[in-house]
Amino acid sequence: MASTILKRTSFSSLRSVAGGLRMGATPFRAFAAKVEAGTDLLAAAPDVSLQKARSWDDGVSSKFATTPLKDIFRDKRIVIFGLPGAYTGVCSQQHVPSYKNNIEKFRAQKVDSVICVAVNDPYVMNAWAEKLEAINAIEFYGDFDGSFHKSLGLEKDLSAALLGPRSQRWSAFVVDGKVKVLNIEEAPSDFKVSGADHILKQI
Amino acid sequence: MASTILKRTSFSSLRSVAGGLRMGATPFRAFAAKVEAGTDLLAAAPDVSLQKARSWDDGVSSKFATTPLKDIFRDKRIVIFGLPGAYTGVCSQQHVPSYKNNIEKFRAQKVDSVICVAVNDPYVMNAWAEKLEAINAIEFYGDFDGSFHKSLGLEKDLSAALLGPRSQRWSAFVVDGKVKVLNIEEAPSDFKVSGADHILKQI
Repeated sequence: MASTILKRTSFSSLRSVAGGLRMGATPFRAFAAKVEAGTDLLAAAPDVSLQKARSWDDGVSSKFATTPLKDIFRDKRIVIFGLPGAYTGVCSQQHVPSYKNNIEKFRAQKVDSVICVAVNDPYVMNAWAEKLEAINAIEFYGDFDGSFHKSLGLEKDLSAALLGPRSQRWSAFVVDGKVKVLNIEEAPSDFKVSGADHILKQI
Repeated sequence: MASTILKRTSFSSLRSVAGGLRMGATPFRAFAAKVEAGTDLLAAAPDVSLQKARSWDDGVSSKFATTPLKDIFRDKRIVIFGLPGAYTGVCSQQHVPSYKNNIEKFRAQKVDSVICVAVNDPYVMNAWAEKLEAINAIEFYGDFDGSFHKSLGLEKDLSAALLGPRSQRWSAFVVDGKVKVLNIEEAPSDFKVSGADHILKQI
């Protein structure tokens, strides 16, 4: 139970959780990402697919088709960012808007697509994208079973925030499947290195 | 991968999945619910809590509080229905509206609350309830880790529909924690016995 987990923590760490997904009073990177600059995503996660955000009816029409990573990354310049969940705070208020509002700058850098991915199903991702009025600027994908983030070592248990197994907050610039730039926040509540302004300087 | 699962199925069962969450060509109840008429929910799931639907900001303000089942069911007459997921087809178009549109009939039967629960986080449930304009009639709860549905044997793997571990479609009338009536659809795509019209005749 999340309530039990929270009761076990000190007040300062509880406040940090409440402040937005930081799981300890002192932020530290308590994980080992399997991906870094230089990693070939297609080799690191050869059997992984994502699920393009769509309405339920479109899901049925598509026979619940998924999108292999190679169809997303092969021969393309992609900026991709991952976040802890649709309809959560920093994600809705800062992370997605930072990319949406800078979409022309990415296009000027010959970025083929800016992609948002989260451990949510594609129907929730679609509804959230529509609510944020971002679906025309950004491509949204679900990672409903977390297999993409697990393959990259970017998964994170956010049960204390009533979310369950989700992901770090991160961004990457990927060319033909190879990671050129990778930014991972120290805590999912942080928004220091994973926004559009930061990666625009790195491309 | 969902696509792999689907490829393994026959066309008729694929069509059934696409038609809405039926996992085989011939519907059958391939599960054993641990709950039935007469079951005391508070005894069957003593340590289980649900998560009241709320915005992320309200989640933070509440310190991610959860609601023990006894606070929901003790000394109350409750109608509760469960469904495979926010923003999916039958759930949005038929299941929730059937209860919303009949809320006065439940009140006339001295039902204290009509509750909708799904294996989603409480922020997604809140956004969906707002979109359906149902949040003033029905109480929405998340079962983000599926522990409630697992305790009752009502869980269901819906990975083939890109949803992951979710639940059966069901409804129940519960008085002071004791199940008086339980209806479970043969397949989550069905909407024959779990709607408001049906349970109103059983109260």
